Amino acid sequence: MSSQPEHPTLLIPGPIEFDDAVLQSMSHFSESHVGPGFVATFGETLSLTRKLFQTTDPSAQPLVISGSGTLGWDLVAANLVEAGEDVLVLSTGYFGDGFADCFETYGAKVTKLSGPVGGRPQLPEIEKALKSKKFKVITVTHVDTSTGVLSELEKLSELVKSVSPETLFVVDGVCSVACEEIQFDKWKIDGVVTASQKAIGCPAGLSISMWSGKAVEAFNARKTPPASYFASFKNWLPIMRNYEAKKPSYFATPSPQLIHALHTSLTQILAKPLSERFAKHAEVSDRIKKIVTELGLKQVAEKPEDQAHGMTAIYLPETVKSTELLPKLAKAGVVWAGGIHKEIAPKYVRFGHMGVSVTDPNRKDVDKALDALQNGLSDLGYQKA
Amino acid sequence: MSSQPEHPTLLIPGPIEFDDAVLQSMSHFSESHVGPGFVATFGETLSLTRKLFQTTDPSAQPLVISGSGTLGWDLVAANLVEAGEDVLVLSTGYFGDGFADCFETYGAKVTKLSGPVGGRPQLPEIEKALKSKKFKVITVTHVDTSTGVLSELEKLSELVKSVSPETLFVVDGVCSVACEEIQFDKWKIDGVVTASQKAIGCPAGLSISMWSGKAVEAFNARKTPPASYFASFKNWLPIMRNYEAKKPSYFATPSPQLIHALHTSLTQILAKPLSERFAKHAEVSDRIKKIVTELGLKQVAEKPEDQAHGMTAIYLPETVKSTELLPKLAKAGVVWAGGIHKEIAPKYVRFGHMGVSVTDPNRKDVDKALDALQNGLSDLGYQKA
Repeated sequence: MSSQPEHPTLLIPGPIEFDDAVLQSMSHFSESHVGPGFVATFGETLSLTRKLFQTTDPSAQPLVISGSGTLGWDLVAANLVEAGEDVLVLSTGYFGDGFADCFETYGAKVTKLSGPVGGRPQLPEIEKALKSKKFKVITVTHVDTSTGVLSELEKLSELVKSVSPETLFVVDGVCSVACEEIQFDKWKIDGVVTASQKAIGCPAGLSISMWSGKAVEAFNARKTPPASYFASFKNWLPIMRNYEAKKPSYFATPSPQLIHALHTSLTQILAKPLSERFAKHAEVSDRIKKIVTELGLKQVAEKPEDQAHGMTAIYLPETVKSTELLPKLAKAGVVWAGGIHKEIAPKYVRFGHMGVSVTDPNRKDVDKALDALQNGLSDLGYQKA
Repeated sequence: MSSQPEHPTLLIPGPIEFDDAVLQSMSHFSESHVGPGFVATFGETLSLTRKLFQTTDPSAQPLVISGSGTLGWDLVAANLVEAGEDVLVLSTGYFGDGFADCFETYGAKVTKLSGPVGGRPQLPEIEKALKSKKFKVITVTHVDTSTGVLSELEKLSELVKSVSPETLFVVDGVCSVACEEIQFDKWKIDGVVTASQKAIGCPAGLSISMWSGKAVEAFNARKTPPASYFASFKNWLPIMRNYEAKKPSYFATPSPQLIHALHTSLTQILAKPLSERFAKHAEVSDRIKKIVTELGLKQVAEKPEDQAHGMTAIYLPETVKSTELLPKLAKAGVVWAGGIHKEIAPKYVRFGHMGVSVTDPNRKDVDKALDALQNGLSDLGYQKA
């Protein structure tokens, strides 16, 4: 039994429901951010982060910084790109577009390839773009939280390496890390940015990222200084290396409570093979998508191979409004999210299925949500055509 | 009795000891960042922040963003200053110097006035500098955590308004907000940046700031876009206004648990008149400084009027090393900090006395620390000359 008070089950695509031990870690007594106890905890947390990203390359470098997932975009734009350099942004929704906006803030020249709503840019057009000019960085949103569109990383990386091997390959993994497979070394990824509050299952407030030796070298080779102070690799890299070596170090005060919670969640995640975790998310996602289809509903992500495994974005029947359905779900104790893709926002809803709601066999969150969906639609007069 | 497990009493200049109810708020069950419950909590928190800064001006604007206190510098440098504009930085230690570095990252032309170690720049030299050219912004570190030097805000503001009224007056209040008096409206302050983990008494992880209508106008009058994405006023101002109007809104995911803890700590602080809180911090600080002086020890902040009320930076006797004294204190269950001012780092230690350790009559933290200091010095063979 959970020690948390009864509350609506949060099944949006992040923040997600938290394990009791993770939440209890948030109440850890106060510690010095440079004292031996906390330095050890932070150092271990950074080492656990390497395992989460399946990297054993000692030149890879994790960063864990107080901030939102969005801060990860600034890390890329302010450190890996200099003003006037070209970047190629693959967009599959709201978050790909935001990443492009962030690059423009820092003076990068952005070429954006967008899929159709619910789809993704295809390899031949990406290849054509990569051949058109020299890009410093290419970015892809692994799962765009606005559409539930999953991008394919391994083939994309192979393409980049064959057509434009100098280009840094950077992944926005905010809605994918810890629920979709990411092999940092094997897939030759140069950067993954993510956040604590999605499949990692730790409360919001941490920007978590992993950088290849090649990315760090590209940073070191900059002609101009980094374009941000709080998001500067120059300020953070020595600090993270010191923490991982269990040496006290200071640039800006970390949040001991959030780091304790992250340590707990990563320890739980890594107690089992990651492959099992990814398979479980895929199995539950497949079941959800099958029931959604049986109900006669379509997904925003049209093709099965483009569908994420930690969330489902579902088009509503024409006769049902999200402002009617979401309150029905809430009455049944289930919180889903509305749409946020500007072209289709009122027409769809989003169901997050990540973390303990999927992996903890004592939780019936997913069944409760599917029941609530069916009852809600039925109450609103919907019948499968 | 505290419900926290027994642990060393943290008396560094932040993070500080936390109240039980604040720590319990950190374990709040998961909520949607755009659901009505959390939106109300965040909106109330922003309104409480106005009270903490003693502002009733509706054109003033609070921001509460996931990040460290350091992020506040980026907020100033990326929004209120454009590349090539002049800023005047008054430095009283490590943190004034860091603020200057941050401005340079964003292309500002920095004039820095530094006090002698343990002192602060004086009004006549500040007046001379203000008359030498047009500064977009002047900044002052209210209390520099590296030295415990307190700066005087009201007279400084009067000087700025009389000599260079267009210059924005910005205060780094990381180590002063909630333990030193700050009258945002009356003292015509244009910006205060602070963090959650010092006298506010909430765990680290939040950048908290307040901006005058004049500062927002200066931002709106920029010729160039803001120079940061995550720290951009353009991205955050509409979000904060919406939250305070209890309307859901999204730019980057806030940390509901940290916001709940901040709500709890601000509610506790504002349950009594702020004047009592500041008087209590001054009273306890005076007592500490009296005992330190009676022990024959000198403070880094030499003159009484330059001494902060939430911390004390104490020079060690020549025969005592901080690497000997701090472990003695730790054995007695008290955690102090070493020095971080590069010119004098090994020669002094820092004692933080903010928040519940000062205001909660059930806590004997300060007495415990003073006893540990006297015993530690005595164990190390020190006798007052």
